[in-house]
Parts: sequence; structure tokens; C-alpha cells
Amino acid sequence: MRTLIKNGTVVTAVDTWTGDVLVEGERVVQLGSRLDVPVDRTIDATGKYVLPGGIDVHTHLDMPFGGSTSADDFSSGTIAAAFGGTTSIVDFAIQYKGQTLHHAWETWMRKAQGKAVIDYGFHMIVTDLNEQTEAEMDGLVKEGVSSFKLFMAYPGVFMMDDATIFRALLRTGENGGTICMHAENGGVIDVLVQRALKQGHKAPKYHALTRPARAEAEATHRAIALAEMADVPIYIVHLSAAEALEQVTAARDRGIPAYAETCPQYLFLSYDNYEEPGFEGAKYVMSPPLRPKAQQDLLWRGISGNDLQVISTDHCPFCMKEQKEIGRDDFSKIPNGAPGIETRMSLVFDGGVTKKRISLNRFVEVTSTSPAKIFGMYPRKGTIAPGSDADLVVFDPLRETVLAAKTLHMKVDYNPYEGRRVKGAADLVMSRGKVIVDGGKFTGRAGDGVFLRRSGRSL
Amino acid sequence: MRTLIKNGTVVTAVDTWTGDVLVEGERVVQLGSRLDVPVDRTIDATGKYVLPGGIDVHTHLDMPFGGSTSADDFSSGTIAAAFGGTTSIVDFAIQYKGQTLHHAWETWMRKAQGKAVIDYGFHMIVTDLNEQTEAEMDGLVKEGVSSFKLFMAYPGVFMMDDATIFRALLRTGENGGTICMHAENGGVIDVLVQRALKQGHKAPKYHALTRPARAEAEATHRAIALAEMADVPIYIVHLSAAEALEQVTAARDRGIPAYAETCPQYLFLSYDNYEEPGFEGAKYVMSPPLRPKAQQDLLWRGISGNDLQVISTDHCPFCMKEQKEIGRDDFSKIPNGAPGIETRMSLVFDGGVTKKRISLNRFVEVTSTSPAKIFGMYPRKGTIAPGSDADLVVFDPLRETVLAAKTLHMKVDYNPYEGRRVKGAADLVMSRGKVIVDGGKFTGRAGDGVFLRRSGRSL
Amino acid sequence: MRTLIKNGTVVTAVDTWTGDVLVEGERVVQLGSRLDVPVDRTIDATGKYVLPGGIDVHTHLDMPFGGSTSADDFSSGTIAAAFGGTTSIVDFAIQYKGQTLHHAWETWMRKAQGKAVIDYGFHMIVTDLNEQTEAEMDGLVKEGVSSFKLFMAYPGVFMMDDATIFRALLRTGENGGTICMHAENGGVIDVLVQRALKQGHKAPKYHALTRPARAEAEATHRAIALAEMADVPIYIVHLSAAEALEQVTAARDRGIPAYAETCPQYLFLSYDNYEEPGFEGAKYVMSPPLRPKAQQDLLWRGISGNDLQVISTDHCPFCMKEQKEIGRDDFSKIPNGAPGIETRMSLVFDGGVTKKRISLNRFVEVTSTSPAKIFGMYPRKGTIAPGSDADLVVFDPLRETVLAAKTLHMKVDYNPYEGRRVKGAADLVMSRGKVIVDGGKFTGRAGDGVFLRRSGRSL
Amino acid sequence: MRTLIKNGTVVTAVDTWTGDVLVEGERVVQLGSRLDVPVDRTIDATGKYVLPGGIDVHTHLDMPFGGSTSADDFSSGTIAAAFGGTTSIVDFAIQYKGQTLHHAWETWMRKAQGKAVIDYGFHMIVTDLNEQTEAEMDGLVKEGVSSFKLFMAYPGVFMMDDATIFRALLRTGENGGTICMHAENGGVIDVLVQRALKQGHKAPKYHALTRPARAEAEATHRAIALAEMADVPIYIVHLSAAEALEQVTAARDRGIPAYAETCPQYLFLSYDNYEEPGFEGAKYVMSPPLRPKAQQDLLWRGISGNDLQVISTDHCPFCMKEQKEIGRDDFSKIPNGAPGIETRMSLVFDGGVTKKRISLNRFVEVTSTSPAKIFGMYPRKGTIAPGSDADLVVFDPLRETVLAAKTLHMKVDYNPYEGRRVKGAADLVMSRGKVIVDGGKFTGRAGDGVFLRRSGRSL
Repeated sequence: MRTLIKNGTVVTAVDTWTGDVLVEGERVVQLGSRLDVPVDRTIDATGKYVLPGGIDVHTHLDMPFGGSTSADDFSSGTIAAAFGGTTSIVDFAIQYKGQTLHHAWETWMRKAQGKAVIDYGFHMIVTDLNEQTEAEMDGLVKEGVSSFKLFMAYPGVFMMDDATIFRALLRTGENGGTICMHAENGGVIDVLVQRALKQGHKAPKYHALTRPARAEAEATHRAIALAEMADVPIYIVHLSAAEALEQVTAARDRGIPAYAETCPQYLFLSYDNYEEPGFEGAKYVMSPPLRPKAQQDLLWRGISGNDLQVISTDHCPFCMKEQKEIGRDDFSKIPNGAPGIETRMSLVFDGGVTKKRISLNRFVEVTSTSPAKIFGMYPRKGTIAPGSDADLVVFDPLRETVLAAKTLHMKVDYNPYEGRRVKGAADLVMSRGKVIVDGGKFTGRAGDGVFLRRSGRSL
Repeated sequence: MRTLIKNGTVVTAVDTWTGDVLVEGERVVQLGSRLDVPVDRTIDATGKYVLPGGIDVHTHLDMPFGGSTSADDFSSGTIAAAFGGTTSIVDFAIQYKGQTLHHAWETWMRKAQGKAVIDYGFHMIVTDLNEQTEAEMDGLVKEGVSSFKLFMAYPGVFMMDDATIFRALLRTGENGGTICMHAENGGVIDVLVQRALKQGHKAPKYHALTRPARAEAEATHRAIALAEMADVPIYIVHLSAAEALEQVTAARDRGIPAYAETCPQYLFLSYDNYEEPGFEGAKYVMSPPLRPKAQQDLLWRGISGNDLQVISTDHCPFCMKEQKEIGRDDFSKIPNGAPGIETRMSLVFDGGVTKKRISLNRFVEVTSTSPAKIFGMYPRKGTIAPGSDADLVVFDPLRETVLAAKTLHMKVDYNPYEGRRVKGAADLVMSRGKVIVDGGKFTGRAGDGVFLRRSGRSL
Repeated sequence: MRTLIKNGTVVTAVDTWTGDVLVEGERVVQLGSRLDVPVDRTIDATGKYVLPGGIDVHTHLDMPFGGSTSADDFSSGTIAAAFGGTTSIVDFAIQYKGQTLHHAWETWMRKAQGKAVIDYGFHMIVTDLNEQTEAEMDGLVKEGVSSFKLFMAYPGVFMMDDATIFRALLRTGENGGTICMHAENGGVIDVLVQRALKQGHKAPKYHALTRPARAEAEATHRAIALAEMADVPIYIVHLSAAEALEQVTAARDRGIPAYAETCPQYLFLSYDNYEEPGFEGAKYVMSPPLRPKAQQDLLWRGISGNDLQVISTDHCPFCMKEQKEIGRDDFSKIPNGAPGIETRMSLVFDGGVTKKRISLNRFVEVTSTSPAKIFGMYPRKGTIAPGSDADLVVFDPLRETVLAAKTLHMKVDYNPYEGRRVKGAADLVMSRGKVIVDGGKFTGRAGDGVFLRRSGRSL
Repeated sequence: MRTLIKNGTVVTAVDTWTGDVLVEGERVVQLGSRLDVPVDRTIDATGKYVLPGGIDVHTHLDMPFGGSTSADDFSSGTIAAAFGGTTSIVDFAIQYKGQTLHHAWETWMRKAQGKAVIDYGFHMIVTDLNEQTEAEMDGLVKEGVSSFKLFMAYPGVFMMDDATIFRALLRTGENGGTICMHAENGGVIDVLVQRALKQGHKAPKYHALTRPARAEAEATHRAIALAEMADVPIYIVHLSAAEALEQVTAARDRGIPAYAETCPQYLFLSYDNYEEPGFEGAKYVMSPPLRPKAQQDLLWRGISGNDLQVISTDHCPFCMKEQKEIGRDDFSKIPNGAPGIETRMSLVFDGGVTKKRISLNRFVEVTSTSPAKIFGMYPRKGTIAPGSDADLVVFDPLRETVLAAKTLHMKVDYNPYEGRRVKGAADLVMSRGKVIVDGGKFTGRAGDGVFLRRSGRSL
């Protein structure tokens, strides 16, 4: 099966050129000015961008949470991703206390198998690190689960103390894995939450008011310091606060290999959303919380200046009905998270490229190339080059859409960007050589996505 | 009883003038150009400095440590202090797990009573913070024990987690107390120590090599961040590393009320001392450890620029024989600490004023005035002004002495500065109007020192 | 003549104590708890502060400016200063191109003699530096004119190029003088002014809009760099922008002896004043200009943290009528400057001490002690100690006044703080032992002020 | 004419893949996994890298200097460049006072025409900016001379004052040109040079000792501040000092579009070279001078962290004999400059990639892609993509060479790296589709290089 994508503006993290891309089987095989070869299908990309498929390295599909489960499973979630122009995800498998890491991995493999329509990998959330599970880490890296997420927040649930974190970091120095960190000081937050509740503060906005930016900045600084002492790189997930970004910038200025991602919600939403009337603020309850609007520009600066390398989504949707409303009388009980897997590419393109905050190449870099490189998927994923997987998006930079829960494909009863008009959308999406979205129709098949055996860090 | 100190160069943290100081009873009552009043005793201070008595806010006298006890009790320790020109100390009372704070206070009061020859106060080391002990903190502040020391190091012994530290900080926001912090990341250090021992590294220098400067800088940053979130000042004890100082400087540049002390050992000794032959390095085993020599200049800059406000001693002597040698085959068992209560004023005067690193007024400020103000002893202590306690030192800026364990008065069988020649020494020392050291003789009396009921913070 | 000031709260840059101050002739001779000596006059200071007289090191009295002259001469100006609690000034003598420095000095001596009611010194404004005038600098330092002001602004009038500034700095390394710098990039400003005028922008606010904060920050950085290369201290006058303060802070953090003053106008007024209707904005036309209101807090932080050491006034009044209005149709022709010599102490006390931004001691330090020390007037001026000049202010911390051109004593037809209510005012002012202001009446005599022969820098 | 480069490891600034590159005429037309097309010539690149040709944006060929001329003209210089793997240069045309910019351009066009063997563009050195030459700038940008170099050093020769620099910067805001800045404070340096000569300091090392790093840092800060106020990007040439890099880093952290290049001499040589015996130090006399060895690591960090975007050479060779020796008795007369055009790629590959300081992609970026993008040559130059010029280098990463004046092709009688062994060398070099270096032989033709009409900035 050969497909020729003709006459598009092909964009990578560094190049922009107009011409043709030849796909054979699952791979890109030729790039050229005017390729003249017999093919099975020709796709005309005139006036469109041909982009490497988006890679979302922070999703929570089918994730159990306090008796409930995040609203998208690997079927609805990956279909939504595909519609948005994303062709690979890295989700999180959770080790629960007392379990082995392999048990967690297998559990999550089962969630994905037969459902995922795009390729998927896993980070391993480690909650119980002992001699045995430390040894398991080595094996997982070899088997393609090469990154591990630790928490400095959620005491009693996920939080690890510094000694344990440090041991995990040292271990990656030996096995080549990467530590991803949820950087918020959970101890402080817990005290503030208890105090707020005691004072009768129950509304959603107290979720934000009990999670100060300084608590994120502190944990970010600490995470980097621990990594520096262990002499390994570190990756900060969902960085939200300018104060935290300052820590990353300062470390990088000193030459420390600290990496960080942010998410569209921190670029387009703000604390003001918590002040929406009634219980509406619950839509935006996530951790870290949304920050003051003035910080958005500082995050964009971090993106353009490469102090933030990745934009992922932290997609973790809960419906308002029956899920978010659990916390109607107690903000601390509101399930944390919001949908985003489908809207990332359009939001970032619109806010970044259209609004001239970042270049087109940088857009590709933060949504695809850097995540692929950082998490061991490159060169199979993350670029358009001979030999790479044919994960390709024909993207119309001018097509405008209005974001709305009703028309989006995520299975959640609201959208945090409801009504927002964005310019730039995926017209056609190809996963390993097969067209899975075309002209607003899903043309793929559940189960066609395969597990991504990722290599160790190349940070 | 009236005493006239005539014709000295009177020095405070801001002024330098030549003239007379009249003492009546325990107080300074007049300062003047040529006081002509009938007195009981006249002391000629021509060519000498008249300084406010030194205040050492970090001492560990008669402190139990692993079956042993620090070598100086409140008798020998305060006599040594007096010889060195120090007329007030603040020692540490230790709450052990399960005990009340008051029990600790009473225990330490008994250690001092009848022995101390100069005035003394206590910081309370809190190791067990629960609702009851939190409530006790309020009472202690009112009773004059207005500062509390917490540890971020020594897991399983003194170390507190961030939530507990944060609760203590919040409490001082209400009761006006001050939190003093031992800022080293104990979790990281513990892992490094275990690893070093496992690798067969037993020598004293591994004490330093397992306590990286970054572990101190991280904890310093965290302590300040926690205080910032609690909206209270904080005081970092025995800051040793330039990296930690950078954190204090950065916080102060942002207007955060962060304070810090360093100690002479960090200004005059260095990592090189751990490389002394045989077991000699044990003399310098203290926490934080000595740092590279190049950092000394950076600490002096911190002192001159007021990013370090206080020079205290962390006096905590253990003899080489029978005490330090416990750790001959395992550096982690060496009792932590070194003597310093007697040598502080001369060392800092010589290294600071004589070597032109700081002004004479700044010398008075860091050794007496700032500690008095920060820890609620001012204006009774820390200056020479009408109404202040007559804690006075006639100091000869030109007299040279050679530091040696044999001639010093501390009860410890070595001195870390053995053989060092210093310029500047106390000739005569007066405590609340009574001369207690004169011409190399101790003329005071055990038990004449009184408990200093300190007011809450004036930071 | 002996005067006893009884029972006041005596305040220095470090001490606060209640008691008596004995003045004999021109000097303070005794300080005491209850002085019981025969005196000619007793002043009851119960409930009042007794402060060292204010020192204003930046005034422009009787200064020629484009055919006009600043509105206060040494008579009206120093009387106004006295009413405000200021007992010493350092004014600026201007060397015009082709003249010797001594000629300038003599000219300004004549302006002051027989008129000044408080003591005065001079900084020398150097505009023409050649071999001869460089040599003159050495002599002036010896004669008590130990500081020199250079300009990085006003090309063609005062501005010096970097090579000349550097030569002047090097010279002070040899002769002990101090360079004071007007730090704004005059080249940039000139281009912006010309461009604005060409675009038809004539209103007063364009004065501010053509003098960007970055132009001040740049020049501040450059001035400090030149001083660092010359290995001498430097003093930045009238710092107005937070961006410039950042440069001073960064240099001081590196240990560079950089000093800076700010003025009340930058603490209490802001860019918004330029937006006042009609030509009112002209009242605030000064250089550097007023900055955005949000910067005020940052300047206060600089003051409390000692990155700004001095608050002076840059008193340089021009009447709206006939003077400011020269620039009605061209902002660049508005005489630069505003009145402030009389209101400094009350404004800073109210905004600083009453509003709890700085301590009472720090208030004394920035308005009196630091200027005295930096500019070679200490210990004669700047403190209350035996032997110091009896320049004293009995200051009522509770008395409220409303600032108004009509009731103030400066000879200018408007006041930039018109209508502002301030708490804290000088009740009685003594200059070298003589009461010159008492209960709202001037009791001094023109010509009683003497020239202050200042020593070289003690920075 | 079609050429196929087969089976190489093709490297761009972001991608690394193994396969084939098809060249047709002057352009790259296809990239593919196994291209199977009829061609005129096949080049086997198995085991080699296929790189975009190097771009050196800082050369001084055939440059008059004080009666002498730089040793390489556009013939020998570009041949040497080609041997080193560089296929494009941007040289400097100098406007002398009183001349038009076009006159300068034409003069330099004549120097290059008929001689250059690779493509060349020009930056315009502006020394005389008036209304007419400002207007000329606009035209030059349109004609492809889109960058202008200004000097903050060399007073009386090249140095411009800040007002003039600012006007030039403002102009580029309108015409899309780019200002390149030689950032050293010439005023300070001039005073230091005169002082050194007066003190009898004549040796080459005084060249360095009279050009302090702080003078470079100051000018760098100033240049960026001027650009910030003009709201345009700026490009700092030949950055040498860590202190200057700090300024660039700080500006970029604030989001300011400041760019900078460094040169191999600052990465591989150091101040120590000036201490070589006799007059040997003259070999290294260039401006800015070589800095302390410890700074090399900081510059590498700047390169890897993208605070330095470009490595150029500042190739400006003068023979020791008859040229450098002019300054035998006066360091200030030594012609400034050193050879480097031929050794750049091997040095940077060896020190960067082989020594693992930067990635292979980053090597391509700093030596080719970024210079092309910054200076308006992309996508014609700087990458390997369909449609780009076939400027290609087959580079052997393992071949070792020993650098020596004798075997290198630059026309200068010494080499600053004489005897240094480097790993990595160009085997074959293609310029616009024609092989010009092959197996150590030059196969090109004088005059085949064409003038590069560059577009305006894309910074």
C-alpha cells in the first residue's frame, strides 16, 4: 500500500518545505520536490501543512478515582485524540501500594488492548518503592516502559518522601529511565486544605487558594535539586506557575538537565474561571490549579525560549454530573482533572502560531518532536523523515472551529473552552500509514493502536 | 556600685566615639565626653574599644548525645565564653519524643542554674509537634522561650516533615515566636551515607562527601518557601554553603524576611581539614560540614552585605578521646560538633575587622546587636546605651594571641584552630555591671548568670 | 550655653532609648538616663522622638537654568529645610565648560554665605574634565568638596562619554573622592525626544514617555560596571525605576560597592500624575521621571533591604508661572525639577514608619546617618553621640499636617503633594546647639550655617 | 546532472536518518530510504555523516588594516573554507567615513567576484550614519545586504555613540535588517591601553589585560538594552566572556530577542596562550581577547542551552612575519585577528560532539542552520531538504587530523591550534551540486561562488 501526500507544506521542528511525502506500508519512504511514482492513493495537501502526528505524553484514560473512573477509556479517548491530530499518547499505569509494577503495567495494557486506535505507551506511577520494585524498574526500562512518575503531592495516597524519590532518581542513573515529577508540596497543601475546610471554605475556588504557586515552585526546586544530586535529568509534569518556571529556567541557566511540560489549560484558562457562578468552577478543578491570567504570557515565553519543552494535556475528564458534583459541598472531594486530549493541537496552533507567539516549527517541536525525543519514541515518532512511522496530519491553518462539548468526541458533559473559536484544524490524520480521520469522519479501527516500546532517555 | 570606663573608643553597631561610660548597678546610665562623677571604680580604656558584650545564640552545653555528653557544661562553657568576650548565650533545650516542651525547658533550666556565669536563654528544639505541644509553644513565647528550632535533617531522630514544619511556622504567625531551622535535606543525606558505608567508605571525610552543598541549599530554599507561605520570618542556623547563601540572598532580594547565621568554622576552616592525616579529620565533623575554601569569601560577602545577619558558634565540643573516636571505623558515628564559644570574637575581629572585610561597627552588629534584636533581647542586650545592661567588653584591637587547646578554657582536648595567631582580644569583661574577666583572670561567680526572658520576635 | 533635652525617646540608626541629651555649645556632650546637671535651657521631649537632624544630600538652590533660576535660594531653601527637620544639605556647584572647578566652588560659596541657616556642603558637577581639572579634583577632596557628580544624560550640556567618566572614576581611586552619577542614557533619550516632537507630541507626559525605565537601568548598569573596572565605589543619584534598582541589587549581591539614593517623589507620586488635566503634568517634570505606581513598593523594598541607602530630595523648584510654563508648547522646554526639601522627613516618616514599611531606626539611617557616612560628614553629623554636632530634631510622631504650597516655606507656587495628610512632624529643630525652629517659628539667623568640609569617602 | 549520495547518515538540526540524498542540478530533490533512480554519479557515504554545508557568518577576507591586508583573499580564504566543510560565508564590507554604503558594497563585491569558490554574502560595517546612509540601509536590505555591523569599540575609527546606534536599531525596526554588534566598551579600553603603555607594558598579553571581561559584559548589556528600547532583535558578534554571556542569558530569560555567536578560539584557547614565551602571544591578539580557561565550559553550556546560537570564526589572519610583528614593541599596534575559517567544523565537532558536550543535531544547528535562519539564507542554505541548495558535506566522524599551518590551506604562517589532534573531518564537499573538495583535493573553480542575496531577518 503506497500513499502519496502531494504538494503540502511539510513542516518539521526545523524545516518547512513544499513538496511530496511518499508513504509505503507503515513508513515514510521518500520526500521530494515532485515525486512521480505509482501509488494506491494520492492525497492533495495543497495549501495545507503536513505535520508529524501530535504526541500527548500526559493522559489518564480509564483511570479509577475514588469509586469513579475518568470519563474516557482507550477507545473514546484515542478517537478524540485522533480527531485533534494526535497519533500517539503516553498514559499512566498506576502501581497501588503492595502491588508489583508489572501488575500495574499488565492491568493498563489490558485497558488499552483492543480499544486504542492510535499507538500508546505507558509511564509507570510508582507509589511503593522497595528493593523489589526498584529492581523491577530496571526490567521495565528494558521492556519499553522507560519513564516513572512520582508525586510530591497527595500525602497518604501518592506522595513519596525525599529519600525515596532520591533512591528512584539514583536508580534511573543506572537503568536509563526517566523520572517525571508531580511537583507540588503536598504537606503544605494538606494543612491549607484542612484549615480552609475548618474555616468553612467549601467552594471550588478554594481548591486553587489552598494550592499556592509557591508550593509548586518549592517542589519544582526540590525535585531539580534531588535530580542534580543524583546526577540525572528530571522532567516536571504539568507546570502551571510562573514561579515554578523560574526554577526550571534558573536550573537550565546553570546547565542542569531539567525539563518541563505545561498544558493548554494553563495557557488559555486562569484563576478567574474558578470565580464563575455557582458550582461552575468545578470544571477547572485540577492540580496544579489554574493561575492568575498574567502568568500566561510568562508560560508562552517559557515555551518559545525552550525552558518548557513539551505541551501535553493531562487529559483526565470527569463529568460534572455524578462525578464533579461529588465535591459540591467540599472542594477537596471534587475529582481532579479536565478534558483536553482533542483540543490541544488546535488551541496551541491558534494561540501560538496564529497569534505569532511561536514559530510553526516550534509548534511541531513542542507538540510532537520533543515529546518523542524525551520519551524514547524518536525517530520512529515525532518527525517526517525517511524511515519514520507514517503518523501524519494534514492540517488546515485557516479552518476555524468553535470548541463545544457537543461536537467534540470526548465523553464528558462539558468543555472548559466551550464557545472558544480557534483557527487551525486537522483535516486528515494518518496513523502508521492508515488514514484514521478524514474530513470529519473516523475511518480507523479499535485495536489498531499498538503498544509503544520506548527506549531509555535520550535527554 | 558605680564604675566609670574612661576614655575608650565606644563602639556600637552604628557609632564610634571616644569617651566615658558610666555604669551604675547592673546598667549603663551615662555616656559622655568627659564624665566627672564620683565612682567606686575607674577602668582606663585608653586605646581600647568598649564593646557591647558578645551574644552567642547557638550553643549546646551539657547536651546528651548517644550515651555521651558535650564536653562543656554551663559552668566551663560560660566561663570560656566570658574569656572570649561573650556575655550572653542562647542554648538549646531538647524536647524528646513523647515529652512536653515544658519538661525540656525545666530540664535545661536545671542544667544552667547555679552554674552559668553569664546570662542565658533557651531556644526550644521541638521534635514532637502535636496539638498539645503546639499549644505549649504559645505559653513558652510568653515565658521568654520565644524561639523554636526544627530540623530538616536527622530522619528518625529530629527530622520533621514539611507539613509539621508548616504547622509550626503558622503557629508562630499567631504567637510571635521565631522558627530556627537546621536546613539540610536529611532524606538525601541518609541515602548517601548508607551508600557510602556500603561502599566501604569509613573515613571522616565521607561525613562531608555525603552532605552535599546542594542538600543544604535545597533545604534552605524549602524552609524559606514554607515560611513565605505561612507569612512569617524564618531564621536559618549555621549556614555553611555558598549555594545556601544564594537562596537567602535571592529571597531577601524579593523582600522575604529570611535571616541566617553562619559560624567561624565556615569562615576559617574548609573541606581541606577533612583531608588531614589519620583520624584528625574527625575534629571537624559537624553538620553542615566544612565547605571548599573558595566559599569563605562568599560567606564574608554575605556578612558584609547583610544577607547573613549573625555569627554564632554552634559550640558543641566532643573530645577526640572517648568521644570523637567512637566513629573511628564509621564516620557516621562520630559525634557531630566542635568547640568555638571562646574563640568567636577574636576570630571574627581578626578575620573581619583587622583584615578589612567588615567595619568595626558591623563586627559589633553581627556578634551582638543583631542577635539581640532578632531574638528579643534588645535593648537590654546588644548595645551600649543609657538603660541597657552593663554587659561590656574592653577589647584590645592590637593584642595578639595564639589559639591553643591548652590555654583556652573550653573542656575539650583539641582545638580546630590550634596554632592560629589572631589579633584582637578581650582584656576585661563585665556582666551586668560586674567585672567577670580581668587581665586573664576569671573574677565572676558560678550561678551569677540569670535566665533571659526574651520577648517575641522583632524581625 | 547648655541645653538639656529631657525625657525624649532618643533614636539613632541602631538604638532607641528614653532619656536625656545634654548639649553644650555646639556639641552633644552627655547622654543619660536621668541627667541632673545645671543648664541654661531645658526642653521637654516627653512623648517625642529626639532624632539626629535630617541630611539632604541632593539639593539645587539658586541654580541657573536656561535664563531662569531655581526658585529657592540658600536663604528660603535652608529655612524650608529647617522647618522640615533637615539640618544639613549638600548642594551642587556647577562647573561650566571652560571654567575651573575652583571657580565653580567659589561661585556657589558666595551664593550660600550669609544666607544659609543650616550647614551646607557641595558636590562638584564636573562638565569639563581635562588634565588640569582632574588635578583640581585632588585638591577639592582635600578641601572638603569630596564628591563629584557626572551625567550620563543631557548630551551637549552635561553628558560625559564613558572614557571621561572612567578617567574620573580612576582618579577617585587615588584621591578618595566619590563619584555621584545621574544615570540615564542621554543619547537614547535625545533621539526619543526628537522623534516625539517630530510626531507632534508636546504635552508634559511625553517627558516621561521619552525617558524609558530601561534607559535608566542601562545607565545604572554601565555606571556600576565602569566603577567596578576602576575598582572604586559609586553612588547613583535619584534612582527612580525598579529596573535600575535591580541593577544595583544584582551588583551588591556580587559584592560590588554600589550605592544609590531615591527621593520621596518616586515613593509617593507616579506616572499617573502626568495624566492630570491641562498643563498640570508639568509640576512633575523632573529627570528621571515618575514611574508606574506599582514600582513604589519595589523601591520601598530596596530601602528596607538596604539596596537603597539614602533618601534625598533633588529639591529643584520652578514655579508654574513664568518658569514651568516656558514648556507649555514643548515638553522638552519645561524646567526639570520639583520642590521637596521641606517635606522629606514627614513624608518618609509617614510612608515608612507609620505605614510600617521601615523601622524607626531605618528612618534615621536613610535620612541622616547613611548620607553622613557616605559623604564624609560622620561622626560630626548623622547621629546622636557624645562629641557629635548638636543637630537635633524633636519630632512628634503623632502630629498630623496637610501639605500645601501656601503653608510650606519653599518659594514655589505649587506643591506636588498638595492636600496630602501626613503624620509626624518636627516640633523643634536645633542646629549646632542653637534652636532654629520652635513651635512653627523660625528662630535662626541667615548666615549661621557654615560650610561643611567633608572628608573623603568612607564607603 | 544528477548525483546520488547513498547510504549516509543524513543529519539536520533536528533529524538523523540513514538513506539517500538525490541532487539534481544545484538542488536537493529527493530524500529517501532506498532511492532507485538513474544518476550521473553515485557517492557512497556509508558510515559517514551527510551534513548541510557549514556557514561561517563572520569572516574578514582581503581586509585592509593599517597599510596591510588580512592574509587571505576571497580565493585562498574560500578554498580553505571549503576544505574545512564550509560552503557559505558572510564577510564584512566596510564603509569608511564619508563614503556611501553602496560604494563599500561594490568594493567588496569586486574583491569576491571571480575569486570565491563558495557562495558569499556581506554584512555592512557602518561607520558613518547620517540621513543619507540611513536611507541607504533600507535599499541594501532589499538588495540582500540585510545585516549591519556596528562597533562599541575602537573610538575614532569604528566606534559609534549610543544615540547613533539607537537610530540604526530603530531603522532596522522599519526595514527588517539586523544589527550585529561588536560589544566592548571602547572608551574604557582606550583609557586602559594608554595607561598600560604609559606604565611601560608593551607585551602582547597587555592586549588582554586592557580589555576586561566586564567591558564586554557592559557593552553587551547596553547593546541589548538599546535594542530592547528600539523593540528590535540584536545579534552580538564574537562573544568571548562568561560575564557577557550572562547578560545574553538574562535578557533571553526575560524574553528579549537577543542573539549571540561565539568562535572556536574562545572554546579552545585561553588567556594562558598570551603567556607563551617571547612574542608568541601575538598570534592570539584579537578582540575580544581570549579569556580564562575556566570560562570555556560556560561558553559550551551557552551553546548547548541555546543562549549562544551560532559558532562563527571571525577569520582575520595576519602573518607573524611583517604583520603581527608590527606590534613587537607596542601591543596596541599588533594587527587584531587570527585564522580559523578552515578549522571550525573539525574543532567544533571534536570538542562538541566527540566530547559529548553537544548533540550531533546541535552541531549542525550552530554551524549551519541557525546562521542560515538568522541571516536570511534559509531554506536555501542551512539544511538538507527537498528544494534546498545542494551544499553538502560528507563528513567522517572518525578520521583524525593534526592541525598545522603547513598542511592547512589558509595563507598565514602560523596556526593557533598547531599540533592539536582533532577527530572528525570533511571527506567530500559539494557546493550547489558540484563537488569542490574530494579526498583532500580541491576540484572547484575560482568564481563559481555567487553572491547571496539574503532576505531580511527572520529572528
